[in-house]
Amino acid sequence: MRFKFPLMAISLEVAMIVLFGLYVQYELVYNVPQQLNTTWTTMDDPLQLYPLFRDVHIMIFAGFGFLMTFLKKYGFGGVGFNLFLAALGLQWGTIAQGLIHSHGETFHIGMKSMINADFSTAAVLISFGAVLGKTSPVQMLIMTILEIAVFAGNEYLVGEIFQATDIGASMTIHAFGAYFGLAVAGVLYRSGLRWEHENEESVYHSDLFAMIGTLFLWMFWPSFNSAIAEAGEPQFRAIVNTYFSLAACVITAFALSSLVEHRGKLDMVHIQNATLAGGVAVGTCADMNIPPYASMIIGSTAGIVSVLGYKFLSSSVGMQAAALGSSIGTAVVGGLVTGLILRLPVWNQPPDEHCYDDSVYWKVPKSREHDNLFPQHEHHNHLEPEV
Amino acid sequence: MRFKFPLMAISLEVAMIVLFGLYVQYELVYNVPQQLNTTWTTMDDPLQLYPLFRDVHIMIFAGFGFLMTFLKKYGFGGVGFNLFLAALGLQWGTIAQGLIHSHGETFHIGMKSMINADFSTAAVLISFGAVLGKTSPVQMLIMTILEIAVFAGNEYLVGEIFQATDIGASMTIHAFGAYFGLAVAGVLYRSGLRWEHENEESVYHSDLFAMIGTLFLWMFWPSFNSAIAEAGEPQFRAIVNTYFSLAACVITAFALSSLVEHRGKLDMVHIQNATLAGGVAVGTCADMNIPPYASMIIGSTAGIVSVLGYKFLSSSVGMQAAALGSSIGTAVVGGLVTGLILRLPVWNQPPDEHCYDDSVYWKVPKSREHDNLFPQHEHHNHLEPEV
Amino acid sequence: MRFKFPLMAISLEVAMIVLFGLYVQYELVYNVPQQLNTTWTTMDDPLQLYPLFRDVHIMIFAGFGFLMTFLKKYGFGGVGFNLFLAALGLQWGTIAQGLIHSHGETFHIGMKSMINADFSTAAVLISFGAVLGKTSPVQMLIMTILEIAVFAGNEYLVGEIFQATDIGASMTIHAFGAYFGLAVAGVLYRSGLRWEHENEESVYHSDLFAMIGTLFLWMFWPSFNSAIAEAGEPQFRAIVNTYFSLAACVITAFALSSLVEHRGKLDMVHIQNATLAGGVAVGTCADMNIPPYASMIIGSTAGIVSVLGYKFLSSSVGMQAAALGSSIGTAVVGGLVTGLILRLPVWNQPPDEHCYDDSVYWKVPKSREHDNLFPQHEHHNHLEPEV
Repeated sequence: MRFKFPLMAISLEVAMIVLFGLYVQYELVYNVPQQLNTTWTTMDDPLQLYPLFRDVHIMIFAGFGFLMTFLKKYGFGGVGFNLFLAALGLQWGTIAQGLIHSHGETFHIGMKSMINADFSTAAVLISFGAVLGKTSPVQMLIMTILEIAVFAGNEYLVGEIFQATDIGASMTIHAFGAYFGLAVAGVLYRSGLRWEHENEESVYHSDLFAMIGTLFLWMFWPSFNSAIAEAGEPQFRAIVNTYFSLAACVITAFALSSLVEHRGKLDMVHIQNATLAGGVAVGTCADMNIPPYASMIIGSTAGIVSVLGYKFLSSSVGMQAAALGSSIGTAVVGGLVTGLILRLPVWNQPPDEHCYDDSVYWKVPKSREHDNLFPQHEHHNHLEPEV
Repeated sequence: MRFKFPLMAISLEVAMIVLFGLYVQYELVYNVPQQLNTTWTTMDDPLQLYPLFRDVHIMIFAGFGFLMTFLKKYGFGGVGFNLFLAALGLQWGTIAQGLIHSHGETFHIGMKSMINADFSTAAVLISFGAVLGKTSPVQMLIMTILEIAVFAGNEYLVGEIFQATDIGASMTIHAFGAYFGLAVAGVLYRSGLRWEHENEESVYHSDLFAMIGTLFLWMFWPSFNSAIAEAGEPQFRAIVNTYFSLAACVITAFALSSLVEHRGKLDMVHIQNATLAGGVAVGTCADMNIPPYASMIIGSTAGIVSVLGYKFLSSSVGMQAAALGSSIGTAVVGGLVTGLILRLPVWNQPPDEHCYDDSVYWKVPKSREHDNLFPQHEHHNHLEPEV
Repeated sequence: MRFKFPLMAISLEVAMIVLFGLYVQYELVYNVPQQLNTTWTTMDDPLQLYPLFRDVHIMIFAGFGFLMTFLKKYGFGGVGFNLFLAALGLQWGTIAQGLIHSHGETFHIGMKSMINADFSTAAVLISFGAVLGKTSPVQMLIMTILEIAVFAGNEYLVGEIFQATDIGASMTIHAFGAYFGLAVAGVLYRSGLRWEHENEESVYHSDLFAMIGTLFLWMFWPSFNSAIAEAGEPQFRAIVNTYFSLAACVITAFALSSLVEHRGKLDMVHIQNATLAGGVAVGTCADMNIPPYASMIIGSTAGIVSVLGYKFLSSSVGMQAAALGSSIGTAVVGGLVTGLILRLPVWNQPPDEHCYDDSVYWKVPKSREHDNLFPQHEHHNHLEPEV
């Protein structure tokens, strides 16, 4: 059914517009000063948070997007579906988070809700990493809708009911996204993809594209961990601690990558991913009054654990290694249920031989470089599955 | 005449320096406090606008620059000439806009004039997209000078005389740039380029480079539409409305791309361009008190119209589809006159067979990948036209 | 000794953590208001400088990182080692600069020290450019530690003892880094690398990756030159002057590149590097009350000098051409000593035939494009040196 994806996407967009029409209003930004000598304070300024929002936004779209381009034949899908899922997710995240906090009443949006909506898409994009190249657009679209609903519920549970602190949202976002994704991937397990698929590898330049993603995630992680922290000292500490945790993490990730690999060579998979573990690991406590050296210990350890996790577990999502803890239960149950739904044989999951290949869902240039380099793949263009 | 381009460029730079020496001064940033208890307010801070300026700057140089790298053999020209034209244009735009507003008197520059100068180059870069690969550096240089002069006049007309609101400058920038470019391209029409040129196509990785441009335009469009909005509520609304318009636009652009293409496949041309239509379309009214769902309707519609425009009109500039309205008259007339000037046979326009190929104007590595992939083009290096 | 690099890296990280534990504390951000009607002023806000810090951070990691990817076979090393060296350097820079200014006492860190730590890594990365592809990871690691120690001493000398103004740190950073790097490279001179090495060239797409670096350096240079300027007028002037100097520099760099090259063609080496000379050249005086046209004269001249320097000196670091002056003495002596230490035959310097090739230190995809394009290099995988 080639109309399944576009029609579902358009229907969902119509639904979003209706829900926004019913429930969403602007924040009342400024209280009109009551007296002549009362002025608006800087704290009222809605643009105070805009630079931090923008940094998170860059991480979501350029960071995750290019990180996903590492596969030799799935670069369009990596950065393209990332854009689609995040754009859908932020609309639905605004609604889901707003309704759950307002208990079903009309609610107001502003910079903070935009940051939180972007956060909710981060969980989806981490899960997307676990099913990259193996799922159809329709399956990803359904996963986005289900995961964000569960995410909003879990976040409400952790933040409002348990009153747990998790300022960089390591538990609610990163661990949640990783376990949700692994649970979905587990249910969708196919023996045909058990051994290394010929498409499941990088080429030299696809690894460099992925480094764009890594660097934009790495550079802006201090903003991620401080975006919703309390203004003042806590926000300041969240930035500084994340900065030093990430720097320390890079050193140990490089060291361990060299240590565990054949003849001491560095592995791009480690550099692309384990260097970020320091941001995740310090996320839960970044705004607390921990001394800078403690955040460096956290970052160093995260770098080590993450490389070892990649090397010795058969896991394709490495970031979670540093972020065990809460959220796992909800994530796993939610992921399993989502996986079961996605297994229904109506979502046009790509057959094994077409996994990790853009040509199933994208028009690709005839001269695609690896087609020229690996002419034996040329036949893909003639054996297209149902989209 | 191989000296035409460098000598014209140096002469223009000398002219810029002389004009700056005669007419341009810094803004007087701070009024010295007259009384002891008077302090400088935040509003006096010239750096208030700097983050928004910087975002616009990124869109101009990284956004447009990498968007133009989609052609397989014209990547150097795409990002390189973009840098050159924008750097020239912002100097000339500062002068042209300053002189027209000061009626020929000395004028002051600051963050706002820097944003407006960058805006003026955006119009040129949109027109550049319409003549990409088909014009010589000298022709592009002349187009930049003429277009910005007309642009500054039109902007003065729309803003000061008509008092029209156009906060994201959709009309004065995007529609103007598109129609100016189409008019220039129309006059420069050559039957030899009528059918698909063998160089006028992308390769797999050039499409990924172009996605860098798309994402940096997409992510920062809220800054573009809010940079010169009134501080406070209007600026806040411009950001929020653009954010949701762009998100909605992505969903419908993906849906329509899949709907109109063979076997439901997504087309990178749509993803690279139509996803941005939501930013253009909401630009004119982004700061107004429209509810968020209305900006989503605007964005969704723009995504649909833009993909259909690409598919069913033979147009290489898709963004204008969403931005009909004013400015067209000036743009078309200015573009036609500019095109006629550029047709004079003294500007070393590249012959048809050398269009869309960096090797005419750039030293390219001997091992250029497509040279290896398409060895029959090797002879280009021996049949070089006059630069 | 394949364990040399990882063990040295881990030991250094442990040393950093110990030093941070002994000497480093957070800045006391807010003085608790003493009276009820005293509020914290904006000036107390530690996040005031955060946007400028972030821009510098982007230049260090994405700017320098991608600028270094221009070699066809050394892209992983370019962006990867850049990340490693900068992450190490910023930790050590924090310590070295802090201890020298506190005369060995406990000191406080904040946004300003983070900016300065990033600055210190910039010097290392400029030197890294001079030894790119010719040194082992252990050699680079030692260079980083030594250079930053000398850098912190020189900076103290220039700023505190000589009281010289150098707001964009052109002398203390750019000239220092360039001369230090040239001195190191001079001592490490090997006749085997005298003539063009077959790996010491770019391919088409590696030049485009390098343009990502150029643009992110170019766009954020106004932030670099203003980050530690005095707030208010000087900071404002530093931004505006750098903006116009860079714009003027682009025009003359393009003009000269076309003028000096065969048949008037543009050379990517000039565009990637000489376009930045305007930022370096104006750095020393950017915050001063020079008129805008003067910064354009500085930028234009820098563009011309830099292209001529590239063309007619056999230098691989072009930026220093515009930045003669102080700092050279310290840099040259420090670089020579560092070079002599790096020449000790225990640091596993790569043999000539493995220079400029990622496969010595990185796992590279089997299908690396240039391996396919140049199959005669395939044997590299079988003749690996000791890492």
